[in-house]
Amino acid sequence: MGHILVVGSLAYDTVKTPTGKVDGALGGSANYFGISASLFAPVRVVGVVGEDYRDEDTKLLSSRNVDISGVERVSGKTFHWAGEYDDNLNEAKTLRTELNVFADFHPKLPASFKNSEYVFLANIDPVLQIEVLDQVKAPKVIAADTMNFWITSKISDLLNVLKRLDILLINEGEARLLTETSNAIQAAKKIAKMGPKHVVIKRGEYGIVMYSQNQFFCLPAFPISTVVDPTGAGDTFAAGFMGHIARSNQPLSLDLLKSAAVYGTLLASFTVQDFSLNALKSLTLDQIESRHRDFRQVVSFPT
Amino acid sequence: MGHILVVGSLAYDTVKTPTGKVDGALGGSANYFGISASLFAPVRVVGVVGEDYRDEDTKLLSSRNVDISGVERVSGKTFHWAGEYDDNLNEAKTLRTELNVFADFHPKLPASFKNSEYVFLANIDPVLQIEVLDQVKAPKVIAADTMNFWITSKISDLLNVLKRLDILLINEGEARLLTETSNAIQAAKKIAKMGPKHVVIKRGEYGIVMYSQNQFFCLPAFPISTVVDPTGAGDTFAAGFMGHIARSNQPLSLDLLKSAAVYGTLLASFTVQDFSLNALKSLTLDQIESRHRDFRQVVSFPT
Repeated sequence: MGHILVVGSLAYDTVKTPTGKVDGALGGSANYFGISASLFAPVRVVGVVGEDYRDEDTKLLSSRNVDISGVERVSGKTFHWAGEYDDNLNEAKTLRTELNVFADFHPKLPASFKNSEYVFLANIDPVLQIEVLDQVKAPKVIAADTMNFWITSKISDLLNVLKRLDILLINEGEARLLTETSNAIQAAKKIAKMGPKHVVIKRGEYGIVMYSQNQFFCLPAFPISTVVDPTGAGDTFAAGFMGHIARSNQPLSLDLLKSAAVYGTLLASFTVQDFSLNALKSLTLDQIESRHRDFRQVVSFPT
Repeated sequence: MGHILVVGSLAYDTVKTPTGKVDGALGGSANYFGISASLFAPVRVVGVVGEDYRDEDTKLLSSRNVDISGVERVSGKTFHWAGEYDDNLNEAKTLRTELNVFADFHPKLPASFKNSEYVFLANIDPVLQIEVLDQVKAPKVIAADTMNFWITSKISDLLNVLKRLDILLINEGEARLLTETSNAIQAAKKIAKMGPKHVVIKRGEYGIVMYSQNQFFCLPAFPISTVVDPTGAGDTFAAGFMGHIARSNQPLSLDLLKSAAVYGTLLASFTVQDFSLNALKSLTLDQIESRHRDFRQVVSFPT
């Protein structure tokens, strides 16, 4: 079993969806990823929080198999994101991003983190993603996420990140933006030419398309009739995906990547069933395996 | 093997997509359905054409396993549809609908058609769909398609159709409109309460969701990197779906419906690779089976 290093945000979110609203709820990619991936393998978090960060929120990660010695606490306020979703729950509308302590953040890996075999660079400034890569010694697998903001404002840095990736996880709309291509299948091929050996395009309620070794793998989402809050679905997809790969600690075969995508899909399906990290706090591997069996029925067909 | 009866349009289309344009190209749901479903089982077509309908287009169906003795030829012009697709190839924008000879059409089944075991009511006025149902004797399976125009303008007739259906095939946007529900999973459940025992929601490039016997089946589309013209994809999905069911001639089990949805998906994937019926004219069962094997790789994952 390998160790997973994640760099990302620890945040307080204000989120409004058709079913309700939360204010100051725990969020951030590193939190969503950490709490979920730690069900599969030990996780090391690098990030920053402000003076207002609640003790109970620190304890949430450290009560799991998560090493938070890479989380700096500095003066100022914790990163804050406010967003809302209309009936189209596939896409968030950002209302406000307050970087706060994240504005001057530069990731510093504790010495004990530098031998991490599996690295997930959550959706942060590609300059910071590179700073992390420059500090890890000999990672086996490097995966990253990104978003339209970096595609538009820091494309050359982002292209440098892409060259160093084994896996890019990216939303469909952002894949289109990055490749100037409307067709997701074409977009995946184009992204693979930019560096990542394996490309996962996330399509919200429609599931994912993965492109790897000249092969496509298409997987629907697990059917959920009431999506409460899609926030964190992408990060927990990454968590199940990387978690399964780290747990197996095997070279990246197409079969391993397919299995990993299934676990990512399942993790995301739990996340969206409640606000914030609420559905993930009590989630167990048994529940995941039970949904895995249900999912197999949902997607399998006779030969 | 059972006989399939289809009622629908025989048309000339003007279609513009990002890759090109055709004018006066053969189209219409009965044509798309007939040419494709006849690869699986004998098809009987009920419809109407005008004086301008080309002999070669009549011959196209009759050269296959299609009985066109239910196609009336009347004075006036053939039904004409003009539409265009922008980069979002999932949704057509209708520019013009000229009903022409379809305006006064009332389907009359030849005596030899009335014992058809499998009935597909393509997307036409629900009043006409009922007129067809009133003429068939003892169908084993009745399936239908519909569209937003009928949902908005003839909802009570449409609800009467739904009560008599085994299977409704419907686009995602139209399923949302019909149920006033944004979530496709919820929409499928609501439609099942309106009558159809089995509901297939078509999601374009994202595949389908089927709801049957309290179970969901989710199937991605076959990955196509260049979609030339999506026109007819829904009708050929129905063709593969009903074709496989009629070919098997077995009661509707979940497994049979799943297999049928796979054949529908494959047929649709060929259709969109060229304008009009061009990709379907030379399509063979061997090619379909070959893509079936490829598709299994695309969607299967290890246990």
